[in-house]
Order: sequence, then structure tokens, then C-alpha cells
Amino acid sequence: MKDICFLSATEIARMIKNDDVKSLDVLKSLSTRIEKFDEAVEAWEHFDKNFILNKASEADDHKNLGRDTGPLHGLPIGVKDIFGTNDMPTRCGTNIIGGVHTKNDASVVSFLRNSGALIMGKTVTTEFAYFDPGKTKNPHDKNRTPGGSSSGSAAAVASYMCPVAIGSQTNGSVIRPASYCGVIGYKPTYGLISRNGVLKQSHLLDHVGIFARHIEDIALVAKEIIRHDIEDTSTIPFSVSNINEICKEAPPFDPSFVFMKTSNWKNMEKHAIKSFENFVKKHKNNIEIVDEPSYFKDISRYHQVIHETDMAYAFSDYYKKSKDKMGKKLLEAISRGFKYKSSEYVEACENRNYFYELFQETFQDYHAVLTPATTGIAPKSLKNTGSPEFCTVWTYLGVPTLSLPLLKGEGDMPLGIQIIGEKFDDPRLLRTSNWLVNKVKGLGNDK
Amino acid sequence: MKDICFLSATEIARMIKNDDVKSLDVLKSLSTRIEKFDEAVEAWEHFDKNFILNKASEADDHKNLGRDTGPLHGLPIGVKDIFGTNDMPTRCGTNIIGGVHTKNDASVVSFLRNSGALIMGKTVTTEFAYFDPGKTKNPHDKNRTPGGSSSGSAAAVASYMCPVAIGSQTNGSVIRPASYCGVIGYKPTYGLISRNGVLKQSHLLDHVGIFARHIEDIALVAKEIIRHDIEDTSTIPFSVSNINEICKEAPPFDPSFVFMKTSNWKNMEKHAIKSFENFVKKHKNNIEIVDEPSYFKDISRYHQVIHETDMAYAFSDYYKKSKDKMGKKLLEAISRGFKYKSSEYVEACENRNYFYELFQETFQDYHAVLTPATTGIAPKSLKNTGSPEFCTVWTYLGVPTLSLPLLKGEGDMPLGIQIIGEKFDDPRLLRTSNWLVNKVKGLGNDK
Repeated sequence: MKDICFLSATEIARMIKNDDVKSLDVLKSLSTRIEKFDEAVEAWEHFDKNFILNKASEADDHKNLGRDTGPLHGLPIGVKDIFGTNDMPTRCGTNIIGGVHTKNDASVVSFLRNSGALIMGKTVTTEFAYFDPGKTKNPHDKNRTPGGSSSGSAAAVASYMCPVAIGSQTNGSVIRPASYCGVIGYKPTYGLISRNGVLKQSHLLDHVGIFARHIEDIALVAKEIIRHDIEDTSTIPFSVSNINEICKEAPPFDPSFVFMKTSNWKNMEKHAIKSFENFVKKHKNNIEIVDEPSYFKDISRYHQVIHETDMAYAFSDYYKKSKDKMGKKLLEAISRGFKYKSSEYVEACENRNYFYELFQETFQDYHAVLTPATTGIAPKSLKNTGSPEFCTVWTYLGVPTLSLPLLKGEGDMPLGIQIIGEKFDDPRLLRTSNWLVNKVKGLGNDK
Repeated sequence: MKDICFLSATEIARMIKNDDVKSLDVLKSLSTRIEKFDEAVEAWEHFDKNFILNKASEADDHKNLGRDTGPLHGLPIGVKDIFGTNDMPTRCGTNIIGGVHTKNDASVVSFLRNSGALIMGKTVTTEFAYFDPGKTKNPHDKNRTPGGSSSGSAAAVASYMCPVAIGSQTNGSVIRPASYCGVIGYKPTYGLISRNGVLKQSHLLDHVGIFARHIEDIALVAKEIIRHDIEDTSTIPFSVSNINEICKEAPPFDPSFVFMKTSNWKNMEKHAIKSFENFVKKHKNNIEIVDEPSYFKDISRYHQVIHETDMAYAFSDYYKKSKDKMGKKLLEAISRGFKYKSSEYVEACENRNYFYELFQETFQDYHAVLTPATTGIAPKSLKNTGSPEFCTVWTYLGVPTLSLPLLKGEGDMPLGIQIIGEKFDDPRLLRTSNWLVNKVKGLGNDK
């Protein structure tokens, strides 16, 4: 049998359920993995082996007593260190806060625990989930960035230290590290997952996301955390009760894709361009190349106005009192955030729904949009986390997107294909993604 | 029998239902009233007698054929001239637009029609529903303002030209004219009534409201137009299916009120102060006087930043192209709106929910808050619509409020008491209002 650490979350959850493995054995395997590799990768901000082995033991005891608590019973999940946890410190990648045990768990953390999951530890984030990097290295090349801001979550899943991890994205903080680390990253439709108890950058732009190595693992966890939360007014009542089944189904007919190079194509690495061109060529029967809509050109400015204004508001106390402890990029963003006009801000907010209405027409003809997830492989630097430019538009529009680890760039480094769907069509987007993964790998769940 | 025009909406609807009166007779009575009094009051922007008599006839025919279309069957309702109507022009009180037949009805108009109501005509609004007045006079004194911006809706109901009318409020545009004209004005909780198809000033501040002479008429209409509308993202699914019954019930025990003079008390007319002091004294067993919370002092600035920024955005095209056709107050507001910082705007928006959380504690001890609706009776001027200062806080907070025509000021002019409730507690606020009205009139539905 494979070492447990290499199993999928779905397999682990099933085996625990069937008494084929103990949660304690799962955690022992993952802890060994962490002991072996995390000195080099540094994906974890907080990991306490004894604490989590005890939790796993407790979960096993509950199970033995017939108190199976839910579909994620005994399953370990890593959580980005900007999600409040009442039993572990939260530092948000800054020395201003220090490790705080929040009074309440973030809603997502609470939903996961209610479904039986074990919060395994806290994964490294960039400073306040912005651009100034944390300590994490890319598991595929320790001289390269893992991407950010969900650096630790992506790296931990990529290096088999946990089967699945929670992250967040306000610009490209899930999709980018997923692409660089070679795992699946999922940013759901805006309004599906609560941000209550999570470090806030921007009400309109913050999204909770999920990292895993398998699409069915994304669905497994998404099902438990997609829910209306009265504490986050952006969330809507929306049922994904069949997402586990839907994501594995074969589509009734082959999906059709539109490939958008977008205006950022000019910033792509040469090697990455080649990878994408080969990919598009190989699957040309399913893919049509289309220019990006003209209104996309305003979006990165709109995103910036909203993002930086909201950060200026959210971090204004820190900015006033602890400037010396804040990173350069963050300080610059906040200082710009204080300078925009309110009318620019309102324009940026108001066009969001309008542009989406225009964009939505794409899905009358195509099942999904494909673009690069990043401008190329992870940059050879630990001082920056790479460019989120291929994510900005989709985050602004609030559409669901995944980075799929289907391509390779220079030196066999991973390179993600980004797949984008219609709002609130997340289950079908997972199905289409699964179809694409199987197609690329020559597995074929198409008929 | 009283002339039909003096009947309540509830009576008219019941009589039509029971075949005790024809819709055509109702409209004839109201048309006669309009012919007699509207030359002086000028409440109507658009009223076409033959058109509406035909509509009433059609409604009667439907009824005869057994096609009773709903609880408002054949009931005439006036609608402020900023609500789109596909069969009548909409001018929004400006010569820039001219009368436009919109392709679709505003959602509220459509809900009313689906419930069987007849849209009787369009009532005068101030310019773009801001401060620059329209032609309407106060029915109680033609040298006085009816208040604004829903000037015509308040004046039409006050002068028995229609039993109920729809208006809107972004600052004090329902409560103020209701107070000045001596009718009931109701501004519901933010998120209960759709603004789709209505002239937009501000997403966060715009509210649709209702004018009537009886609380049960407010409930009758509210029940039909409070509903989730996918076209207005602020609306939430919320049931008021029993609002008609609840509003008439006797409360289980006498309500307790807090009277807040607020910091605007210093701007009150002397005569009005006397009226309020008498009122509070007379009902001192039910009323406690409390100072306004300290955070109220920031709200009028916050309201202004949001309101003027949103107007600058909403009216920017008109501002650029048709400045010469716009009123002074509107131009000044827009020009200020272009100058605020985005961080001020976000601060103003973000504190809205926070302040409400603080304010909500009031309702642990009291059923409702009472304040003046206006600084006094309608000012003796047709050049301004009076001050909305007693409404700003409640509009910003999004709480439900009514103006109740219970007091008299100088020269026997009407003066409204404003009653404010907890968010989403609108049905109970109507019940408490009804109790107060009966108490003041010595009728007593208390046990």
C-alpha cells in the first residue's frame, strides 16, 4: 500500500469511515512527512505534532463509540494562518499582531470541525495576505517562490504534508500558488463561502479557496463549507448537496472551451507560451481561441482601486501605529488606497455586476474559459511571490475558477491551466475540470 | 355613504372584492376630486383620466368574468414619477430626460399590477428626487412646501386624490412630506422592497416607501411589494404574509418607547417643541426620554459622503452634458461627491452595520424609538422642501420608520411623530404604530 500521506482526502475519509485506517495513523504519516520535509519547505506557521496526534486519537475514540461526526471525520486539513482558530494562534504573517487565539473559530473552520475534520495546523501566509512573502519555499525548487499569499497551503498540499488545505484569494492568492506548486487551486463563486473570522482585506474581493491534489477532494471539502452564513452578508443560500457526485460524472457531451490569451499574454514566459500553444493545438477540437472582451482593460484598475482602498480602511490603525513593522508593498498599496476618489471607487464597484452580465454571454456558447493561471513557472526568487495578473479579472468578476496542474514549464516545473466558469455553476465547473484533467492525462471519462 | 374618495384603500379593496363598488366608480370619484383640487395642489406629473377610467372598466370586466387578479384588484395607487412605467411617461422631475416610456415596469409597479392594482398616474417628484422642488403645493396651505422628494405622493394622499401612493427615500423623502402633509409615511427596512427600475441615487441609501392615511393600508400594500427581487441585490427573501393581521392586533402588553430628542432638537421650531413636550408628558407612562448615542454624531457626515458620491456617479453623464439644466442644490452635491476620498466612502459604508449592531441594543428594552419626523410644520416656501435632518440617521442605518400624523403645529398644520423599529421587525412596528395612533386618538386597541 502507498504511504497514507500520498492518498487523496476522499480515500482517507472513506478508509477512516470504513475502519480501514485510524485517523491517528493518518496523522502519524503526515507528521513524519512534515518532520522530513518541512525544514526545507517551511509551509507551516503553526504545527504541533502532539496536539494533533491527540486530536486524531480523540476522533478515533469518538468513532469507536459510534459517534461519527460527519463526512470529514478524522480528516486532517491545513488552514491558512489568516483564519481565526480558538485552539491555535493566528499571526496573519505579521509581527504586529503576534499569535492570537481568537475567541471564536472562523466560520469555515467551524463548519469543517462540525463535519468532523481535524484542523491540522496553520499554513504560512504572506504579510497580511498581501505581497510581502513569508518563509515558505516552493517544494519543487527551494530557490523559487511557492507563490502567495496562500503560500503554505499550496506548498503543504504539493509536498504531501496534508491532503487538502484552505486558502484565500483577493487577487491571485489561490490560483497563483496552486499553479507554481503544481496542485489544484479552487476559488469559488463570490458569495458561496463565508469570510467571517478571516483577516479582511476587501469585502467585495476576498474569497475563501481550497487546495487539493484531486478534484473530488475539492468537492468533498467544498460541500462542507459552501453555506449561507449570517455573519457574512455576502453569502447566499445555495445548495451544493450533489457536488461530490456531479464532479465525477461524465458530461453529457464533450465540453467546448474558449481560450483567452488576454492582454497579459505579452508578459508570458517563452517556455510557458510554448506549453500553452501545444496544449491548445492538441485539444483544438474542443478549444476556440477568442480575444478578451474590450471592457477587460478597465478591470485591473478597478480591482486596484477597490483592493487598495479597502486595505487602507482595514489596516489604517496598523498603518498609523506600526508603519515600521510593515512591508514595502503593503505600505505603498495602503498609501495609494488613501488617495483615490470615492467616485472612482463607486464606479469600480458598480461596473462589477454590469461587466459580469456582459461576460456571462460567453457561457451561452462555451462551457468554460481557459487561460494561463500565471505568466509562467514560479519565479526564481524568495523575495516576491510572482504576478497575479492572470487572476485579477476573475476575482473582480466573482466567477469560479480553478488552476489545474496540467502543464510543465522550464525544468519540468509545474504550470497551471486556469479554467473559469459561470457564477454559481461551480459543481459543473468541477465536472468540466475533471473531464479536462482526464482528457489531458489520456484517461478519458468522456464517452 | 361617504364619498368613495374618502375611504381607505382597505375598504375600497374589500368593497370591490365584494361587488359593493365598481373600480370604475372608485376612479370616477377620485378623478372628480383631482379635477376639483389638483389645479391648486399640482400633485400629479401625469394623470390621464380617460386612460385610467378605461383601465378601471377593464378591471371590472375581468372581475365579472371571474378573473379576480389579486388582493389589490381594481385599487388605484399613485406612483412617484421616478418609477419606470411602460404605459406612462417617467420624467424624474427633470427636463433632461423628458417623459420616457420605459421598456419594463419598475419591479414594484409590476408587483402592484400583478396583485391587481391600477397604477393611477405618476406623482410629482423633486428634480431627480433631490432637493430642487417640483410644482406641488401643500394641500393644507398652498403657500407651503409639501416636502420632498416624494412631494406629489404625499400631497395626493393627503388631499384624497388617491388612497395610497408609492414614494422613495434616500434621506428624508418619505417621512418629511408625510409629516408636512399630515399622512402616514412608511420607509421599510433596507432590503425589503426592490429598487429595480427606479431612478437610482444610491444603492446603500435608496428605499422605496408607501404613503397612506391608515396603517392597515400601509400593510395592505407592503404585503404585495415586499419580496425578494433578483434584479435588486439588496433585497432578501423575507415573508410578511401576516402583516395585514399583525398590524391590527393588540400588542400582548403596552409598548414602551424611548423618545430621542437627538442633536437636531436645537433646530426645532418653538411651536413644534411644545407639541412634542405635551405629547411626551401626556404619555409619560409609556415613554422614556433618552439621549442619542454618541456615534450618531458621525452619521450625517457618513450619509452625505455616501449619498453625494453615489449621486456623482449616478448622474455623472448628465453633469457633464447638461449642467445648465440642473438645479443648484443638485449641482453642488454632485460637485462635492467628486471630491471625497474612497477611504472616507468605505469608512462610511463599513460603519453602517457596526453602528446598527450598537443601536440594536435599544430594542432589548424598548419596542420602538420616537423622534420628531421634521423640525416643525411645512416651511412657508415653495422654493425649498424643508430639512430631512430627523431622517438621516434612520435612513443610513436602514431601520424601518413611519411618520404618524398625530400632532398639530402652528396654524393647525400637521406635524408627524416618527416611530423607528428594529430591522426586519416591520410588521410589529406597524402594530406598535397602530397602538400609538389609537392611544393618541383615545380609541385604544390596548387591553
